[in-house]
Amino acid sequence: MQFSFVLPSTIRYGSGVVKELNQIIDQLGAKKIMFICDKGIIDAGIYTRVKALLADDKTCVVFSDIEANPKDYNVQNGAAFARDNDVDLIVALGGGSPIDAAKAIAVVAKQGGEVRDYTKRAIGPDCLPIIAIPTTAGTGSEVTFSSVITDTKENFKFTVKSPAIAAKVALVDPELTYSLPASITAATGIDALTHAIEGYTATCTEPIAEALGLYAVEYIGKYIERAVKDGNDVEARDGMMMGSLLAGLSFSHADVAGVHCMAEALGSMYDRPHGLCNSIILPHLMRENLPYCTAKYARVARALGIEESDPEKAALLGIEKIQSISANIGLPAFKALAIDPKDFRKLAEMSEKNGSNPSNPKPMTADDYEALFYKIDAL
Amino acid sequence: MQFSFVLPSTIRYGSGVVKELNQIIDQLGAKKIMFICDKGIIDAGIYTRVKALLADDKTCVVFSDIEANPKDYNVQNGAAFARDNDVDLIVALGGGSPIDAAKAIAVVAKQGGEVRDYTKRAIGPDCLPIIAIPTTAGTGSEVTFSSVITDTKENFKFTVKSPAIAAKVALVDPELTYSLPASITAATGIDALTHAIEGYTATCTEPIAEALGLYAVEYIGKYIERAVKDGNDVEARDGMMMGSLLAGLSFSHADVAGVHCMAEALGSMYDRPHGLCNSIILPHLMRENLPYCTAKYARVARALGIEESDPEKAALLGIEKIQSISANIGLPAFKALAIDPKDFRKLAEMSEKNGSNPSNPKPMTADDYEALFYKIDAL
Repeated sequence: MQFSFVLPSTIRYGSGVVKELNQIIDQLGAKKIMFICDKGIIDAGIYTRVKALLADDKTCVVFSDIEANPKDYNVQNGAAFARDNDVDLIVALGGGSPIDAAKAIAVVAKQGGEVRDYTKRAIGPDCLPIIAIPTTAGTGSEVTFSSVITDTKENFKFTVKSPAIAAKVALVDPELTYSLPASITAATGIDALTHAIEGYTATCTEPIAEALGLYAVEYIGKYIERAVKDGNDVEARDGMMMGSLLAGLSFSHADVAGVHCMAEALGSMYDRPHGLCNSIILPHLMRENLPYCTAKYARVARALGIEESDPEKAALLGIEKIQSISANIGLPAFKALAIDPKDFRKLAEMSEKNGSNPSNPKPMTADDYEALFYKIDAL
Repeated sequence: MQFSFVLPSTIRYGSGVVKELNQIIDQLGAKKIMFICDKGIIDAGIYTRVKALLADDKTCVVFSDIEANPKDYNVQNGAAFARDNDVDLIVALGGGSPIDAAKAIAVVAKQGGEVRDYTKRAIGPDCLPIIAIPTTAGTGSEVTFSSVITDTKENFKFTVKSPAIAAKVALVDPELTYSLPASITAATGIDALTHAIEGYTATCTEPIAEALGLYAVEYIGKYIERAVKDGNDVEARDGMMMGSLLAGLSFSHADVAGVHCMAEALGSMYDRPHGLCNSIILPHLMRENLPYCTAKYARVARALGIEESDPEKAALLGIEKIQSISANIGLPAFKALAIDPKDFRKLAEMSEKNGSNPSNPKPMTADDYEALFYKIDAL
């Protein structure tokens, strides 16, 4: 085995650390700040609250035209906005969409062209520096080097990936999640669990990513039900934020896998929330993978608190536990996504073509994905 | 809990990766290379082998006057040598001593003065870049930001610590350990286990360090006996190198604790090999700590393959397992270090004063350390 491990982001973690924002901006020597967020962050008052932390020597502009499953034109508009306002630092504030979009904006603002081209084009070091502040415990995007963007002409998601676009500082403050509604806590939480499990089991994973992914499973398993049940359970919110961070560190150094292949296809064609798609699909794809990574799924089960020495039994109990957690926290069934079965073939083909498909423990063909779409639609 | 996590080193891991050295030097834009190693590395032919990997456009000088428990004058001489030869990059090749010394030389060569002063003096960013190539599976120094140096006037060890002195690249190639003799494999291997356990249990630890430390315990537990028994067991050598790396990542982001406090005192006064001191002391200090971190020691035991659901019993079985491993791989008893009991008081006082003493799970006074020295001397 050979692998490389690099962490371009300095992580600052803990309740209240967002208050260090002004000081961190000073350390980075920036004066003209561009906040990137979405309407939800504005409406929830989080942007106002965070902006108020900045000293008077900074000027701020805000770009909030970021949609869920961020679109290529969101990036182009954001990059033009950054250039027009001559900003020297981005504060990305929100869930995965604003943070992913910020990474793409950071490179396009400085290196020009169309964001779509950066899947092939070399990414130079000259990107706007980013401070990423997650407001959900799910994305992990604050520590990954990738940005998943939707091509709106051809309706598919593509990934821009480079350590150069990673956040300089990930400012991870669980307090920002205290006001998240239960449904978003649930979907983003199982999204983080998906990152953890896929990072741990991806065919291309390595031991550092495995260690972090497996530990993330423990945190999420321990705290997700509590965090959904009582949003003011400070320990649970803290544990979920930690689980999401560990999971982000894991999959960014390994890969995601089949769950993301299916979820990104759904996100591209139907614009459904990414975390929700992942969280609905996770246990079903795990059943497909079971014979291909029994020992690892048994470890996942143990991390979820299951004491069973037979690996096959343990692995299955683990999957059942994830399904029972999902039911307990109110995640809907696949039907709720309202996907027309006539699109299953196309969605399956998109899933197979996804760059992360080879990372899935079971080698999945379009036929396999199609059969799985039908199967979970019939449940 | 609040913490920061930064990893200044890019890790490149795997069998054969040392062959990428020339390319990595080119990426760092260096031409005049200073190798830092010790006599053992020269005698084993490792320096010649690694130097041969460099292309003709580089010039090399070598500084091999690094002693075990590297001395302050080793650092001053090395820094003068670096300046005299106007080098622009250090390749640190060896166990913990050359790599620790290299980190101190990197700062003194550029920022001047006495190395001792950098325990108090601010360390600026201007340090010679280092590529660290470990030749033992034990030190973890290739990914830590600290350098432990012996003050030869006052006979104590001090630590210079800053992300600025960390290696830019850690080139971690298990093949370089294939020729290590069994006794060094044994002592450095339990040294790595010490890093893993202290990183996991330090009072100041955090979840990223915990995840990495605990996973390191698994690797080391699984492979140490095989690696000592058969140095050509490639899988075991690989596993030990991975365990050492994971352990280094863990303790550099948490801390070491009581074992190191005692071992560094022994190294200061008696110049005994650091890894050997750690490995002899480890299980004895764990018995002291047991009531203070039972749950975590139970996890350590599980990582060592022990299936026992009662935490207290499991923790004890884990300590016994470490003692049985140590015996199996031929580690000597404390008596072999030939320490005069009249020095136990002084050694105990030095242990208490060590900066890592507050990180030990059990709050240890000089009296506690003294009693422990007597206890393990009587075994």
